[in-house]
Amino acid sequence: MGKRIHNFNAGPAALPLPVLEEIKEEFLDYKGSGMSITELSHRSRWFDDIIDEAVGRTKRLLNLGDNFQVLFIQGGASLQFCMIPMNLASQGRPVDYINTGSWSTKAIKEAEIQGKDVRVIASSEDKNFSCIPENFHVDAAAAYLHFTSNNTIKGTQWVRFPEAGDVPMICDMSSDIMSRPFDVNPFGLIYAGVQKNLAPSGTAMVIIRQDMLERVPDDLPTMLKYTTFSAKNSMFNTPSCFVIYALNLVLKWLEDTVGGLEEMGRVNKAKAYLLYDFIDQSDFFKGTAAKNSRSLMNVTFRLPSEELEGRFLAGAQKEGFGGLKGHRSVGGCRASIYNATGIQSVKALVEFMSEFEKREG
Amino acid sequence: MGKRIHNFNAGPAALPLPVLEEIKEEFLDYKGSGMSITELSHRSRWFDDIIDEAVGRTKRLLNLGDNFQVLFIQGGASLQFCMIPMNLASQGRPVDYINTGSWSTKAIKEAEIQGKDVRVIASSEDKNFSCIPENFHVDAAAAYLHFTSNNTIKGTQWVRFPEAGDVPMICDMSSDIMSRPFDVNPFGLIYAGVQKNLAPSGTAMVIIRQDMLERVPDDLPTMLKYTTFSAKNSMFNTPSCFVIYALNLVLKWLEDTVGGLEEMGRVNKAKAYLLYDFIDQSDFFKGTAAKNSRSLMNVTFRLPSEELEGRFLAGAQKEGFGGLKGHRSVGGCRASIYNATGIQSVKALVEFMSEFEKREG
Repeated sequence: MGKRIHNFNAGPAALPLPVLEEIKEEFLDYKGSGMSITELSHRSRWFDDIIDEAVGRTKRLLNLGDNFQVLFIQGGASLQFCMIPMNLASQGRPVDYINTGSWSTKAIKEAEIQGKDVRVIASSEDKNFSCIPENFHVDAAAAYLHFTSNNTIKGTQWVRFPEAGDVPMICDMSSDIMSRPFDVNPFGLIYAGVQKNLAPSGTAMVIIRQDMLERVPDDLPTMLKYTTFSAKNSMFNTPSCFVIYALNLVLKWLEDTVGGLEEMGRVNKAKAYLLYDFIDQSDFFKGTAAKNSRSLMNVTFRLPSEELEGRFLAGAQKEGFGGLKGHRSVGGCRASIYNATGIQSVKALVEFMSEFEKREG
Repeated sequence: MGKRIHNFNAGPAALPLPVLEEIKEEFLDYKGSGMSITELSHRSRWFDDIIDEAVGRTKRLLNLGDNFQVLFIQGGASLQFCMIPMNLASQGRPVDYINTGSWSTKAIKEAEIQGKDVRVIASSEDKNFSCIPENFHVDAAAAYLHFTSNNTIKGTQWVRFPEAGDVPMICDMSSDIMSRPFDVNPFGLIYAGVQKNLAPSGTAMVIIRQDMLERVPDDLPTMLKYTTFSAKNSMFNTPSCFVIYALNLVLKWLEDTVGGLEEMGRVNKAKAYLLYDFIDQSDFFKGTAAKNSRSLMNVTFRLPSEELEGRFLAGAQKEGFGGLKGHRSVGGCRASIYNATGIQSVKALVEFMSEFEKREG
């Protein structure tokens, strides 16, 4: 095995090494079945155990009550942008959205394509999405309030979630699910493409509350109804088996090795503040997100010039740091430090940044 | 590594052992990247090469002209059942369907849910789907003709595809794609869940002709439009990276080790006829599909009683034969012998069947 890089990819992203090693170890013969995990029937006892375990671990980690179901739906968060208004925007009621960046904007666009009564009740677009909006009013008549918990591209995150009273909250948590504990009860639906904090790419995790399932219109296409997935434990048709298998191992690592979301949250905060504290004392590196809205998952920063950024990124790549280039829509630099990126990688990055500043600053 | 079983699963199904070994070998470090294939960005040069190779191999293997595009869309064939009428049923024109079993029936249902003018122009339902219909007329005004090339549950297959004149044919080839050569030109769209002949589960392959892309209505949800996938080389959002990676290796095996679809077709015919010839000379085992409609992929058969079937299946399991139980909706036995199930597994099965008959017949 070659040397592993320090992986700061924004997604697909780093996975815990012990999980990768376990997958490799049993890849040709899953638990004595005489088959690879990729060759097992999804209707087998083996796979039933895997999906049941993954659901059970999700419920324990997030402390979900019996009124929540955990579903796996292919198509990523992008398909959820369209399924949510289709399933949950009860007729005649407006839907409220908060716009905090590219992904929120896309979610809003999909509700508009369907002709829903979309109200963008808050936006940080006028501040180039560098912060999370404050002071907004959720319409008590709204069918739901949609927001994005963490904005990978701009590096912002909700520190405290909005308050929506009795209006069910719907949240895209693709880039920070399972990174910290939170109270799920005000949420009608939580969704996340799994390829950042949970697994290889190829499915979304959808956590849905019972009263939301009751809203699903009968006449939707079968594969676009949440009830199709909830009625069949996500196996109306063949699910993304390998991804769910790997996800279950990542959740096992979160429970047994890390010790749950409280501890994961502490580690993630420590990782992020190693970087933010370094950036704040530097005149060379400059964070791009407002301090009160900084993401613990995606740390975005700039250097004094694009030319220096180019040299920084090339040098970092050469020294074994991957994925530090900012999103192609905004440029600059970004360190994505999801659950599986270890604190030693963050320390090594701070050291590299410090040396680069001394040399070039 | 434990002993590999003889894998007759209906899907997810056997994959070529050299492919599994290659995945295992490079699982912790993809081509010196210092990352697992599951940790690579889909926006990286590494993944661009993988998806371009997979598309290139598909084009070569199926001899596709420049007027065809190869797409990867999550959600399996079941999501295609709904995307096809949504995208391709041009307004005011009927859509023709041929019903040859459970999967065709589901495809028809999804077109009906959308209120399309569905005409079932042929069906073998009155014969319990034991054969492929003959003598039908395709309406020249139809937007398309939809059929299922191979019926996994009943074990039937189109030996020669229907003729539809200028009406574009749309075909669900989930269970026999890349199992034999055929002329793609009369097809407007071919789709296949990849988990039978091509890869682990988690995506559909969609082969679409240019003139079909021109039909796509502007106002559909983004993730449900074929044009979204064709415009972005299937990467509008994060695709199912691991599945596409494995699929590319399976196609490489098909091209380089097997030697292409002519040769694969010869091998598949030889495998199937080992079983059918044995069944035909036996008074104990009885094939369930009409002889002129027999599938080369799924060989369905019964024993004289359900009690004997139970004993046969249990005995087979014990001797290292997996996946021989018929679909839960029809019972009986089924040997799925997709591309990756070797002729030595089929020979071993015939031997086991012969011994079982001698002992219990």
